[in-house]
Amino acid sequence: MINEKMVKLGTKRSIIREIFEYGKRRKAEIGEENVFDFTLGNPSIPAPKEINDAIIKNLSRKDAHGYTSAVGDNKLRENIASNLNKRFGTNFTFSNLFITYGAASALCSTLRALLNEGEEVITFAPFFTEYTVFTEAQGGKLVVVPANLETFQINFMEFKKLINKNTKAVIINSPNNPSGVVYSEDTIKELANVLRDKQLEYNHEIYLITDEPYREIAYGVKVPFVTKYYDNTIVCYSYSKSLSLPGERIGYVLVPDEVKDSKNVYAAVAGAARALGHVCAPSLLQFAIAECTDLTSDLKAYEENRNLIYNGLTDLGYECVKPDGAFYLFVKALEPDAYEFYKRAMKYDILVVPSDDFGVTGYVRIAYCVSKETIINSLPKFKLLMDEYK
Amino acid sequence: MINEKMVKLGTKRSIIREIFEYGKRRKAEIGEENVFDFTLGNPSIPAPKEINDAIIKNLSRKDAHGYTSAVGDNKLRENIASNLNKRFGTNFTFSNLFITYGAASALCSTLRALLNEGEEVITFAPFFTEYTVFTEAQGGKLVVVPANLETFQINFMEFKKLINKNTKAVIINSPNNPSGVVYSEDTIKELANVLRDKQLEYNHEIYLITDEPYREIAYGVKVPFVTKYYDNTIVCYSYSKSLSLPGERIGYVLVPDEVKDSKNVYAAVAGAARALGHVCAPSLLQFAIAECTDLTSDLKAYEENRNLIYNGLTDLGYECVKPDGAFYLFVKALEPDAYEFYKRAMKYDILVVPSDDFGVTGYVRIAYCVSKETIINSLPKFKLLMDEYK
Repeated sequence: MINEKMVKLGTKRSIIREIFEYGKRRKAEIGEENVFDFTLGNPSIPAPKEINDAIIKNLSRKDAHGYTSAVGDNKLRENIASNLNKRFGTNFTFSNLFITYGAASALCSTLRALLNEGEEVITFAPFFTEYTVFTEAQGGKLVVVPANLETFQINFMEFKKLINKNTKAVIINSPNNPSGVVYSEDTIKELANVLRDKQLEYNHEIYLITDEPYREIAYGVKVPFVTKYYDNTIVCYSYSKSLSLPGERIGYVLVPDEVKDSKNVYAAVAGAARALGHVCAPSLLQFAIAECTDLTSDLKAYEENRNLIYNGLTDLGYECVKPDGAFYLFVKALEPDAYEFYKRAMKYDILVVPSDDFGVTGYVRIAYCVSKETIINSLPKFKLLMDEYK
Repeated sequence: MINEKMVKLGTKRSIIREIFEYGKRRKAEIGEENVFDFTLGNPSIPAPKEINDAIIKNLSRKDAHGYTSAVGDNKLRENIASNLNKRFGTNFTFSNLFITYGAASALCSTLRALLNEGEEVITFAPFFTEYTVFTEAQGGKLVVVPANLETFQINFMEFKKLINKNTKAVIINSPNNPSGVVYSEDTIKELANVLRDKQLEYNHEIYLITDEPYREIAYGVKVPFVTKYYDNTIVCYSYSKSLSLPGERIGYVLVPDEVKDSKNVYAAVAGAARALGHVCAPSLLQFAIAECTDLTSDLKAYEENRNLIYNGLTDLGYECVKPDGAFYLFVKALEPDAYEFYKRAMKYDILVVPSDDFGVTGYVRIAYCVSKETIINSLPKFKLLMDEYK
């Protein structure tokens, strides 16, 4: 009688959230230090001190808690544009930016803006599980290109088989959740070439949605700025990871002028956000972030963590592609069924996420945005887990 | 090619927002004190000092900016339940509450949770303009019951003509935006009776969605707590007005146990929120509000404003139903076309909202959540405007 799809979505929650809730209960039972919780991409590095200072400072504004324009605070939008222009040689202005409740809202608004009922969106395994939910809820169908298991770059052979005249958009996510892999410039160039060819062949636009919450978290490799490679690119961003503000829900949609009919696309994003319940992104945090657009958290701890856990696990015999970004390790499970492996790891209070919902079987995701101690203390447990399979 | 409905929604913005943006530009041109801006329900009374204190205090939490559970912080949910129970003699627990990005998200999530494609939602003119957008975007059709122009209570004769077997839900909003009228206990009882009868007649549930951002703003009249009159009631709330935090986007959906299959309805709300891009409501503000659930802003200034503007305008000859709550006055335009009247008022830099989008012709909404000076200084302008029509 009520909407059964929504009941299902609310009952069968994201497995990540499910394990996270279990982890919270388990920590209360046996102590936080005894649970090796690698489930959630909740940044372990605190927000920069400047954010908290800016929050306190902006509290004295008369409009600290007032509505901003639906599109977002102008100063915030200007400062984001100027930061991007400095770093990437682009020419954005505030009018290219729409401030959202984080990347989830940015993606939902963008998808709703672009899609007509039944159109297809392509993404590449492994992929962030919620893309399925977001796409289907906005009337589209998510088509998943099987992974390139050697590199976790794009599997172009399979991509070319799956793209078709109903393809309206493609979502990429680099640095990638869950693999930690950064798409190389070659990958982006080839992707852009395929999309340009297919636009001509099908005689309609194909939008490239680039979901970039991990843009700033990369270890010594270049993360290509995608709008420079393909005109119909729309960027969805979040400050969740770069400023360690995941709970604050501030992100944006960037619609460059190069996008076909960009003014209409931007208007559709605004309209879609409105239709999904957006009024304005949280005001105080908008004002605070406006003063911190050139900052990031002290992200180098993630690189140390990456080295520690990657070396630790591969020394123990675990297999994984070395990740160059984000804070995830995508490790081959020690048995074909990732879910069975996840459950066995749980016996040692190691909490990891089985890969099936990411579109790949037989792996687990390890979110290493945790304390160094958690990683160090988990390694003997990972050894015991490995020993079970020997 | 892209979603034309969304382009339209983003291009033809809410007229309220449109006038608000004009007002901002006009104030920059001629000075803030010379624009009598009655367009936006942006509280003029500051948030209680305790909110800012709680924000600063909670900044020192390790998880100040971290994800909360999708349903919201437990302490916040517990404190809301306990506050409602104290005031209304109810028996809610945290598990009845789902914390959202304000009332807009609460309404969208509730509608998406309940509606299947093509089902109908009834509301009563005058009504908050965005109900149309929210309902249509969630697959439903909004049916508007014409106003009872004498009282702005519910027009039951027309309601009974329009309710039918496709009616899935009814939205009420009391104290009402835009009329400021509070639905009496008699109105709520009669509404509950009609709905119970119709549930039996059609043999399915009809949900009563009560949109209550103005619950705490009432002047010496009782605002009936609707869940006590009708079992299938779902409350959508926001702290925008009661705590003067409109930009912070914190609200909730309350699904009482009395709702049929309440666990499934709650799950559907959670699922719908997820499908619309909800991850969690802004964390720092959740923690701060958790400490302030028993507080409101110093709301009595609104009553003074109400008296000042109601008396001022009626003394000048303007006609309106005396409002007992919210911070709106719904004044009869001095010519049949409210839009023409709004434009004429604009010549005196009086900014009001024509009533057409609220489902009634020939009125304008005056949001008197402004400074006392704005009201006092506007009265001579209102007089000049009246003189034009004499």
